[in-house]
Amino acid sequence: MYRVDLNCDMGESFGVYRIGNDEDILNYVTSANIACGFHAGDPSTMRRTVYMALEKGVSIGAHPGLPDLIGFGRRNMAITPEEAYDLIVYQIGALYGFVKAAGGKMQHVKPHGALYNMAAKDRALSEAIAKAVYDIDPTLVLFGLAGSELIKAGERVGLKTANEVFADRTYQQDGSLTPRRELNALIHDEQEAIQQVIRMVKEGKVRSQQGTDVEIQADTICIHGDGAHALTFAKKIFEKLTEEGIKIQSIR
Amino acid sequence: MYRVDLNCDMGESFGVYRIGNDEDILNYVTSANIACGFHAGDPSTMRRTVYMALEKGVSIGAHPGLPDLIGFGRRNMAITPEEAYDLIVYQIGALYGFVKAAGGKMQHVKPHGALYNMAAKDRALSEAIAKAVYDIDPTLVLFGLAGSELIKAGERVGLKTANEVFADRTYQQDGSLTPRRELNALIHDEQEAIQQVIRMVKEGKVRSQQGTDVEIQADTICIHGDGAHALTFAKKIFEKLTEEGIKIQSIR
Amino acid sequence: MYRVDLNCDMGESFGVYRIGNDEDILNYVTSANIACGFHAGDPSTMRRTVYMALEKGVSIGAHPGLPDLIGFGRRNMAITPEEAYDLIVYQIGALYGFVKAAGGKMQHVKPHGALYNMAAKDRALSEAIAKAVYDIDPTLVLFGLAGSELIKAGERVGLKTANEVFADRTYQQDGSLTPRRELNALIHDEQEAIQQVIRMVKEGKVRSQQGTDVEIQADTICIHGDGAHALTFAKKIFEKLTEEGIKIQSIR
Amino acid sequence: MYRVDLNCDMGESFGVYRIGNDEDILNYVTSANIACGFHAGDPSTMRRTVYMALEKGVSIGAHPGLPDLIGFGRRNMAITPEEAYDLIVYQIGALYGFVKAAGGKMQHVKPHGALYNMAAKDRALSEAIAKAVYDIDPTLVLFGLAGSELIKAGERVGLKTANEVFADRTYQQDGSLTPRRELNALIHDEQEAIQQVIRMVKEGKVRSQQGTDVEIQADTICIHGDGAHALTFAKKIFEKLTEEGIKIQSIR
Repeated sequence: MYRVDLNCDMGESFGVYRIGNDEDILNYVTSANIACGFHAGDPSTMRRTVYMALEKGVSIGAHPGLPDLIGFGRRNMAITPEEAYDLIVYQIGALYGFVKAAGGKMQHVKPHGALYNMAAKDRALSEAIAKAVYDIDPTLVLFGLAGSELIKAGERVGLKTANEVFADRTYQQDGSLTPRRELNALIHDEQEAIQQVIRMVKEGKVRSQQGTDVEIQADTICIHGDGAHALTFAKKIFEKLTEEGIKIQSIR
Repeated sequence: MYRVDLNCDMGESFGVYRIGNDEDILNYVTSANIACGFHAGDPSTMRRTVYMALEKGVSIGAHPGLPDLIGFGRRNMAITPEEAYDLIVYQIGALYGFVKAAGGKMQHVKPHGALYNMAAKDRALSEAIAKAVYDIDPTLVLFGLAGSELIKAGERVGLKTANEVFADRTYQQDGSLTPRRELNALIHDEQEAIQQVIRMVKEGKVRSQQGTDVEIQADTICIHGDGAHALTFAKKIFEKLTEEGIKIQSIR
Repeated sequence: MYRVDLNCDMGESFGVYRIGNDEDILNYVTSANIACGFHAGDPSTMRRTVYMALEKGVSIGAHPGLPDLIGFGRRNMAITPEEAYDLIVYQIGALYGFVKAAGGKMQHVKPHGALYNMAAKDRALSEAIAKAVYDIDPTLVLFGLAGSELIKAGERVGLKTANEVFADRTYQQDGSLTPRRELNALIHDEQEAIQQVIRMVKEGKVRSQQGTDVEIQADTICIHGDGAHALTFAKKIFEKLTEEGIKIQSIR
Repeated sequence: MYRVDLNCDMGESFGVYRIGNDEDILNYVTSANIACGFHAGDPSTMRRTVYMALEKGVSIGAHPGLPDLIGFGRRNMAITPEEAYDLIVYQIGALYGFVKAAGGKMQHVKPHGALYNMAAKDRALSEAIAKAVYDIDPTLVLFGLAGSELIKAGERVGLKTANEVFADRTYQQDGSLTPRRELNALIHDEQEAIQQVIRMVKEGKVRSQQGTDVEIQADTICIHGDGAHALTFAKKIFEKLTEEGIKIQSIR
C-alpha cells in the first residue's frame, strides 16, 4: 500500500502580523513545520501553534531558518557550518520547550527557505545541520529536498530522513527543482500538480522539464499554507490522494 | 554544616561583543546562569558557555531576560503574564537544546535584570514564570530574590527554589534590596560585603539600612562576572567562605 | 470656516507581512504617519509609503515607536528621556532619508502607541521628544493627544503642534481618553463617532463619560487604517465632514 | 604637496557592549565612519559619536551595513540592489538626524564589511548604493575600495569619490586585496605597513604579492579602531606621514 506524509510550514505569524490559515490547514496535513522565531514566528505564536497541532493530532516539527526576519529567511547568508549548527540547536531547543511544556513530542526538523536551499547543495552545511538535529535528539526525522545533500547528510549521521517533493514545482533532469526565476518553475494547473504528485508517490518518478523521467523518492509532500487557494488546494490534494488509495500519514 | 551556592550570570557576550571573564569566573562558582539570546547571548556563545561550564563541573541554569538587547534586559517592559510564560519557555528551551546536545543536564532557571526585579514583586508575573519552568521540567530549581514573590510562586507550583542573596547590596528592613538609585545601595568595601554574606549564611540574618536585623535565607550568592575586580572578588569570597567552614556547592 | 486634518498611521507592514490598506486610505486623509522600523515598518515599506503619499499629495510625518517589533510598540517600556530623544532622532532621520531621496518634505511627527501614551502624561519624556523633533527641524509639527503633556512640551520648545482627537474613543471629564480596558472606551456606532468629531471641530467640546462637556481642541483626527471597516469609515467621515462645511486639509 | 585622509570606523558599540577607543582615535584621523545601527551602533552611541567627532573637528560619514548585528555585518547576504538602496537610505538618514540635531554636516558615506566587499565587485549593487547616496545628498563623498566597482558607480552617478587604501593589507596584481583567508593577507610589521602607505600616497603604486607594481589611487587610508595596538598605530602612521610631508586632511 502506498503511503505519504503531507507537511506544511506554519506558525509564521509574528506579533500582530498574521500569515497563513494554520488552523484550517491542519485538517489536511499530517506534519506541521513550526517556525522558531528567526525567519518568522514568535514565542506566543509557537505556543499556540504547538497546541493546535497537538489537538488535531498532527505531528510537530521544528522549522528553523536564517536570522533574517525582514527577508523571511529567504535570502542566502554566508554562515559557517558551525554557525548553522548553533542556530539549528537554538531553534529546535526553543520549539522543544513548547512541545515539552504541552506534553507533546517532536517528530521532525525541516530547515526553512534559504537555509533549506543552501543545505540541499552544500555538503558541509548539511552535515552541520544533520549533526545538530542528531545531537539534540537522534530519533528526530530530518526533512529535506528529495535526494539532496541534506538527506544524504542525515543518513550518514544516522538520522531517519524524509525526502520532500513539491506538487506545484517542476523538476530538472538531475532531480533538482527548476529555479523560481525561470519560466515554467511553477505548475499553475491544479490537476497537473496533483497528477505529478500521485506519480511520484506511486511510481517514484517525475517527468523533468527536459522530457525525461527522473527517479524521485516521495516521503512527504510540501503543502503551502498561505495564499488565496492554499486551503482549497490542501483539501483537494488530500482527497485525490485518498481516492487513489494512497494513505496519508505522518512519517513516524 | 553550612552550605551555600555561588552563582554568576554568564554567556552575556553577543556576536563580536565580549562581556565578562566567564572562563576564569567558572573556577569560583558552582552555578552558571547562561543568557539565552533575548537580553544578551547568541547561539554560538551559548554553546561555548555550556561546554565550559560542563568541563569545569559547574551546574547550568537558564538566564532568560526581556526581549531588549539594546537595554540589556534592564528596562521594565509591560509584558503580560502570558507573554512572560512564552518568552521563558522559549529561552529555557533554546538553552536546553545546547545542554542536551552537549550531553548535560540543566539544573536551574534565574530570570535576568528587569524581569527578575518585576517578578520579585508581581504575583501574577512570578506565577507565570514559575509555571513555565515547571511545565518544561518540574525538577528544575527556580532562583529568585530571597523571600520574593518569585520564590513563593515557585514553592506554590511545586518547584524546588533557591533564595538568592547579594554580597555587595544593602537591604531594607522589609528584606528588599535598597534600590540602586539610592545612596548606600552598594557595599563598596569587600570585607564588609563578605562579612554580610557570611552572616546571612550562618545566622540567616542581615543588618538592614534601618539598623534592624532582618531574617533572610541564603541558598545562593550572586557573584558579578564583569567589572575590573569581578575575578579577584569571586576568588576572595570563595576562599573566605571556605575558611569559615561554609561548603560551597551547587543547589542540587 | 472650519478646518481639520485627517491623519492615519501607515507603512506598518514589515517584510512579507502586510497590514493596512495604505493605498486606499490615502484617498481620504491629509496627513500620513509613516512607521520608522522600530515598532513596525522596514526600509522598503518606508520608501514605498513615502512615494504613495507624495503621489496622492498627502502630507508626510514620521511615526516613531518603541523598539518592540514583537509588541508593535504597544507595551510600555521604562526608557529614559535621553533614550527617548535618541530613538526619536534616529527614526525621524531614517524617514527623512526617504523623504529627501524622493524630493519631498516632512510635515510632522507623531509618536506611536505606548510612546504616545506615555508622552501624553510624562513631562520629562514629552520634553525629550519635543526637543528631538525641534533639534532635527524646528519647522516640523508635533502631533499629540489633545491637551496632553506632549502638546504642552511642543509649545514650550517652540514647535507648531496639532491636537489630535479620536472619533471612536470616549473621553473622561479631565479630557483624557477612557482607557481601552474599560467598558465604553470605544464608540462602536459610526454615526455617533462622526457626530462626536463634528462637535469637537465646530464647538471645541466633547461630552465626557461623566456627562459633562469638556473643552477640546481638534486640529487633527486619527483615522484607523486597518480592520475590516477602516476604509469605509474613512470615506464616510471624509464625506460627512465635508457635507458639514468642514474643510479637510493638512496642518501646514 | 601630498595630501591624504585618514578614516576610521567608529560608533560600533551597542548598548552595554563597548568596542573601539573612539575618543582617542579621533585625535589621529580626519574622517569618522559612524555605524548606523544595522551591523553595529545604536541611537545613543550614534549621538555620542557624532558629538565627539564634531568637537574634535573630524569629518563625519555614515557607515551603513547589512542587517546582521550578530555577524557584525561581515557575512554576505543575497540582498537585491533595491533592498541595498533602501537600507542605505535608511541608515544614512538615521545618522543624518543626529548630525542635523547637533548642527553639523555629513561629509561622506562608506559601506561596511560584507556590503563594502560585495559592492566592490558587483556593478548592480554598487550602482544602487551610489544612487541612494546621491538621492539623499549629491554633495556627499562616496568612500570605496580604490579602483572598485563602487568607486566607478559613484563617479558615473556624479558623486565625488574617495579611493580607500589599507596600510596593513597586501594587494594582488589586479589591485584587489589579498583575501583574508590567505597567508600573507595581512602586513604585521608596522614599518612595512607605513612604507606601503607612503608609497601609495606619493607614487600612486603598491607592490603586489606577485612582485609587480600596481597603480593605485590613495585618497583615504583606513585605520582600524579596535585591537590592542590600534591607538599606537594610528598615532604612528599620523606622525610618519606628517614627517614625510604628507598633509593629513579630510576629503572635502
